[in-house]
Amino acid sequence: MNISLEHAKQLDQEDPLSHYKSQFNLPEGVIYLDGNSLGTQPKASQGAVEKTLIQWRQELIKGWNQGWFDAPERLGNLMAPLIGAKEEEVLITDNITLNIYKLIGYITETQQPKRPVILSEGGNFPTDGYIAQGFCHFSEFEHRFFPEGSNLEDYLDDQVAVVIMSHVHYRTGVLRDMKVITEKVHQHGAEIIWDLAHSAGALAVDLAENSVNFAVGCTYKYLNGGPGSPGFLYVNKAHQDKGWQPLTGWHGHAAPFAFDLDYSPAVGITQFRTGTHSALIYSSLEASLQLWKEVDMQQLRQKSLQMTELFRSCVADVLLHHDIQDITPEPSKRGSQVSLINTEKGFAIVQALIARGVIGDYREPGLLRFGFTPLYLSYEDVWLAAQHFCDVVESGEYKKPEFQVRSSVT
Amino acid sequence: MNISLEHAKQLDQEDPLSHYKSQFNLPEGVIYLDGNSLGTQPKASQGAVEKTLIQWRQELIKGWNQGWFDAPERLGNLMAPLIGAKEEEVLITDNITLNIYKLIGYITETQQPKRPVILSEGGNFPTDGYIAQGFCHFSEFEHRFFPEGSNLEDYLDDQVAVVIMSHVHYRTGVLRDMKVITEKVHQHGAEIIWDLAHSAGALAVDLAENSVNFAVGCTYKYLNGGPGSPGFLYVNKAHQDKGWQPLTGWHGHAAPFAFDLDYSPAVGITQFRTGTHSALIYSSLEASLQLWKEVDMQQLRQKSLQMTELFRSCVADVLLHHDIQDITPEPSKRGSQVSLINTEKGFAIVQALIARGVIGDYREPGLLRFGFTPLYLSYEDVWLAAQHFCDVVESGEYKKPEFQVRSSVT
Repeated sequence: MNISLEHAKQLDQEDPLSHYKSQFNLPEGVIYLDGNSLGTQPKASQGAVEKTLIQWRQELIKGWNQGWFDAPERLGNLMAPLIGAKEEEVLITDNITLNIYKLIGYITETQQPKRPVILSEGGNFPTDGYIAQGFCHFSEFEHRFFPEGSNLEDYLDDQVAVVIMSHVHYRTGVLRDMKVITEKVHQHGAEIIWDLAHSAGALAVDLAENSVNFAVGCTYKYLNGGPGSPGFLYVNKAHQDKGWQPLTGWHGHAAPFAFDLDYSPAVGITQFRTGTHSALIYSSLEASLQLWKEVDMQQLRQKSLQMTELFRSCVADVLLHHDIQDITPEPSKRGSQVSLINTEKGFAIVQALIARGVIGDYREPGLLRFGFTPLYLSYEDVWLAAQHFCDVVESGEYKKPEFQVRSSVT
Repeated sequence: MNISLEHAKQLDQEDPLSHYKSQFNLPEGVIYLDGNSLGTQPKASQGAVEKTLIQWRQELIKGWNQGWFDAPERLGNLMAPLIGAKEEEVLITDNITLNIYKLIGYITETQQPKRPVILSEGGNFPTDGYIAQGFCHFSEFEHRFFPEGSNLEDYLDDQVAVVIMSHVHYRTGVLRDMKVITEKVHQHGAEIIWDLAHSAGALAVDLAENSVNFAVGCTYKYLNGGPGSPGFLYVNKAHQDKGWQPLTGWHGHAAPFAFDLDYSPAVGITQFRTGTHSALIYSSLEASLQLWKEVDMQQLRQKSLQMTELFRSCVADVLLHHDIQDITPEPSKRGSQVSLINTEKGFAIVQALIARGVIGDYREPGLLRFGFTPLYLSYEDVWLAAQHFCDVVESGEYKKPEFQVRSSVT
């Protein structure tokens, strides 16, 4: 490698975000480049969960009046600044799949004139397409894919009601031009639901600035809410209160404790709730969002780009000599990950790295994904991870039989 | 009161379930008659949640391969014997609202001939009607109510596709004749979705014996899974794999990690999953279900009926003299609660009891609900609660101004 450890240490010295690392519970001997799948544990999470366990034990049913019931809106407001949303525009609830379903229903119900097509990008994270297909399977709507990376405008005819796209692509890490795409979709009389799973907490997102009306995302990746912490849903204030969403549960009712016979949607973002949510997991997420309140997102973005560049520079020669392709986009079009491709060796390299404590992940076909999370990674970590990568590839360590066995679920 | 404390203590001596009480974290000075809203905390829950927090911290993404991912099916199998289901017929997932939506879609998609009406009982827990209305609002189906307590058969014409009913009514505590009603609905060519929220864990439910094909329920009431622990969904094996359910997420896909472009439902109960679930709350629920594995449900039912009878006997005179109506059904038609009505005093009596540490709940109009949970209540608790009830009513304590203020959310 042509970059020295001293250089990485120097970058750490100058890093304005370096103090955040001490606020996470990081396991010994691990360099974790998989925060884009499941974020690590903020130290405050444990206390927050224990507090909720005590509350359940001591307060029992009264806990619902002591912060549990309004957690979806309270945490939504905590999150709002991270994605350029205002108060009462974000709700923490259910998961991405369900939240997309609600928004497709909500948008198409009131759209005039009616249009028959839900359009999503081929190669998007599968659940985004699956749920659109489920909606269409049970309605008159038709689901279509447009080819990944093609010019969306070629597919935006007057039949398209809703477009679903990811802000940062889960495989390639490509960051889309939210402003330009949103504008194009609106010009064609359609709406777009942005999936922020790989951008919220990874970079500065500004939904208001980009005229976005609808978005969803998850909180267990870059936002470190905990395994399976709930999704979020965003509806611009001007687009609220236009009609029903389809998953009409009692928590989304205008008066949930009046026990009315008929459904009537709550005012504002609350109508996108369904039924009772888990207090335990909200408390873990809230502890994490409290930490995020203080983060300067411009500094975060700068560190993210510097880390991905550092890693790429350190491994560049080895990639070249071992026929591994770096498909990481240029910085202005990059999320917070490095994406490499080799269909023959990719799986085994990732396994060999995991055995050394460098956790990345592998997605068929041939994709090695390394996520860089500025809050709890140092430049030294990045340098060491790159060093391990070069060792594993150059030494042929990844060829060992134990690294060829495909058994993992995720 | 004409029943002595000694009598209650004697019943405790003879109680084969008395040893379970020590396995719960019960707050000092509280007699909890609201386990039909939120169950108390099994002592094992805390350790289970802490174990999952440690797993998140140390194993990070690998946790999904170490019991998190297959929790919906594993816990479903643990629960199955409690409701007379077999292995692979129960899935722990999402909440009741969402699970009813999935089942309405699943049933109506494949039903032949097509029928246009979803029928639910007026006065059922509101979310069961709301979600049916949501489904109908976005489809060609029509939602109808039949009046609470009326003869269902009068409303079962050849237009009815699906009936939604509660096994035990949340207000009155009336236990329905599952066998007779299910048979009637099937004879009319329709299907019924049973809501077991107030019967699972409250009494012996036998879905197989009663030829039930579809059911849902929750785990945070009598099953003590924790605040907002996930719902469950039951589909009889013979009725699985017939078509799609509408909420088609990646966890319900035939091959979730193949990242196929198109949705294809998983085989068996797994297709009723949607997206990523919270590992933390599943661990709390699993600890509770482990405890339930050993419970003799016949003993549980016997104790439940004895407790509700003891309470009713103890308060009978006071009810009579103070114009409070006891609408608790006869034992064979009773869930595990005592339901009293007085629209003028009801709210204040419940508040006065809460101030004394006797936690019941109040539902408009005029309903005082007291849930009796055989695992962690003793007969002595029941006797003492009745004593407090009589004191509060006879002394006029409930008339104090502080008990008239209506501010609680739940």
